[in-house]
Amino acid sequence: MTTAGTAHETTTRPGPAAARQHSLREHNLELVARAVFEVPEPLSRAGVATATGLARATVSTLVDQLVAAGLVRELPAVTGGRAGRPAVPLVPAPRTVVGLGLEVNVDYLGARVLDLTGDVVAERVVPGSFHDSDPTAVLARLGALARELSDEVTASGMTVAGARLALPGLVDPRAGTLQVAPNLGWSSIEPVPLLGLDLDVQVANEAKLAALAELAGGSDVAAPDSFVFVSGDVGIGAAIVVDRRLFLGERGWNGEIGHVVVDPAGPRCSCGAFGCLEQYAGKEAMMRAAGLPADAPLADLVARLRADDADLPAGRALGSALADFVNLIDIGTIVLGGAYTELLPWLRADVEAALTERVLAAPFVDLQVRAAQAGPHAALTGGAREVLARVLADPSAWV
Amino acid sequence: MTTAGTAHETTTRPGPAAARQHSLREHNLELVARAVFEVPEPLSRAGVATATGLARATVSTLVDQLVAAGLVRELPAVTGGRAGRPAVPLVPAPRTVVGLGLEVNVDYLGARVLDLTGDVVAERVVPGSFHDSDPTAVLARLGALARELSDEVTASGMTVAGARLALPGLVDPRAGTLQVAPNLGWSSIEPVPLLGLDLDVQVANEAKLAALAELAGGSDVAAPDSFVFVSGDVGIGAAIVVDRRLFLGERGWNGEIGHVVVDPAGPRCSCGAFGCLEQYAGKEAMMRAAGLPADAPLADLVARLRADDADLPAGRALGSALADFVNLIDIGTIVLGGAYTELLPWLRADVEAALTERVLAAPFVDLQVRAAQAGPHAALTGGAREVLARVLADPSAWV
Repeated sequence: MTTAGTAHETTTRPGPAAARQHSLREHNLELVARAVFEVPEPLSRAGVATATGLARATVSTLVDQLVAAGLVRELPAVTGGRAGRPAVPLVPAPRTVVGLGLEVNVDYLGARVLDLTGDVVAERVVPGSFHDSDPTAVLARLGALARELSDEVTASGMTVAGARLALPGLVDPRAGTLQVAPNLGWSSIEPVPLLGLDLDVQVANEAKLAALAELAGGSDVAAPDSFVFVSGDVGIGAAIVVDRRLFLGERGWNGEIGHVVVDPAGPRCSCGAFGCLEQYAGKEAMMRAAGLPADAPLADLVARLRADDADLPAGRALGSALADFVNLIDIGTIVLGGAYTELLPWLRADVEAALTERVLAAPFVDLQVRAAQAGPHAALTGGAREVLARVLADPSAWV
Repeated sequence: MTTAGTAHETTTRPGPAAARQHSLREHNLELVARAVFEVPEPLSRAGVATATGLARATVSTLVDQLVAAGLVRELPAVTGGRAGRPAVPLVPAPRTVVGLGLEVNVDYLGARVLDLTGDVVAERVVPGSFHDSDPTAVLARLGALARELSDEVTASGMTVAGARLALPGLVDPRAGTLQVAPNLGWSSIEPVPLLGLDLDVQVANEAKLAALAELAGGSDVAAPDSFVFVSGDVGIGAAIVVDRRLFLGERGWNGEIGHVVVDPAGPRCSCGAFGCLEQYAGKEAMMRAAGLPADAPLADLVARLRADDADLPAGRALGSALADFVNLIDIGTIVLGGAYTELLPWLRADVEAALTERVLAAPFVDLQVRAAQAGPHAALTGGAREVLARVLADPSAWV
């Protein structure tokens, strides 16, 4: 069973002041919801009481409210407990309250709806080319796409709790602003009103949301507690996860590995500097190095690599920048997402060689380079999950 | 008044389990000691009671114990309170319990004794050249130096509470091991027994201890809450401070900015890789670029720079590596320590230009480059302070 997860894009834990803002009932409701969503095996009401330490009668009332609100679903009763009384397993409710993940990236627009079980209920990904694009036109187009999806799931009786808009650049979620997204050619805009959606929408960095999707775990491999997540598309972003929380630096404007120096004598980057990693290991640079058009689909590059008909020099550059990253922050597990997931077989040897050569701690640490598990366009999943995590953090709003 | 500080080289906060290990009296003793050491203005017993929320009678007993143990000193009583009763200001005791900071660096050995007021009671710094040196001989020499100092202060009636040994490399404080210090040519050793001291000694990374000294504050400028500290000597290390705590990554082996790639076509480094920052901005590289012998004193370089008779190309390389650092972790204040403190006037323009050119967030952040305030050989101060912070965290051992 997957759950909507509880990792928020913040390092702040709710403190006593936050607790005081909630009434006791609201607090208990959250405890009960967390127990149902976070314990891997479905709990009965009695199990929730044990897990939360709340009285059984209290739990029963709160569970009834969560069921009525459409957040929790009761499975058919099973017998076999010691008391002989049939227990009703409680699970996250499918297709009731849903979250909407949105994304503008350099070569696609995307929208994805997830329900509380973690299932993708609906999605659209539209390829395109959004270099130096007009934010008003692009965001209006994404807004239309989002409305289409939202209307579709609403017509099926679901409620869209809100949306996250992933952008490949520096964002300020509190101010709702995008500072700069070099590859889009966007700077200093307020993207949310341009979507024209009648929903609570917040902006977030693409790599951070993708890392949260990764943290929630793939189908078969559990995510490590600490890792560097690198999202390789036309631009290259990263996120730092320490003990299952995002490390955000002072403003969340960290992880800009795409602009780490690979060679000061290298080509000029969209950011204005020279020799940035993106100029060697960004998707378009990889295509060009393989003799393909910059906007060719990733499958074309993979086909050429499979046929041993192309070179992927990106691995050396990526390895150099990752070695810098590991030397500076000492996180030993690197998860490669975006286009890198599929390209890993052809990147791995060069990346590992660079890490071995350049990371001072390499002889003493089991440095690991892994493929991301969260699937394509993971920021859409991470965004939808973030919306649902907020629902679970305050279920009383839905009761 | 300076205090011995409370920043430990760990990100772990003492949790409920840690609290339970202490008896209530031990816990209260710590509270009282913290109040005396951390509140900037000297408190009376009544002031301590207010600050801690403990009963006045309890505070009085505990203060008496701290005074008897030599941790706290009573100043002459002052009258003038509303009650008219004379209040006895309480301050950290000078020259009673002291901490010993030790350091092996590539071009010096050092030992420094600090008392609880933060004063340097005694110190020795011996220049030398310890490239590819024999750890047994070097640590025996430092041990002799330390014993000299320790005997001296013990003869004056002080008690050495313990020592920290700062090393320019990767250390595991729990195992007491040095994994590697490339410039010393040391690897996989247990340094503490080689000192031959009859003291509790722990190993630590040089840049981390220097950052803790910086965090404790200089004479005139308060340290920022979050900063990157860069210690520039023959090797170049760094520490990341976030909200007044060290960010240590997974093992504390972070901040290895000396091995960040500046130019892949650059010279071979002591670590084995090519084009590392140390080859451009390490002390010996700076000396050579100025036409001086690699082991010339820093004052010679400064004299040449003052006379406009030398170049300092290190600034561009340092700026490039710092831009990578800021792009990856989003900390906007950079504090330059070690040799860089004195060289900052000649480094600043190049460093700031590189940050402006390469940091994606530069247009939106007030990036600051500052000189360290903690003085020369700051790791000695940081190490001694760490020892005293442990005393204050468990004063009951001294009562």
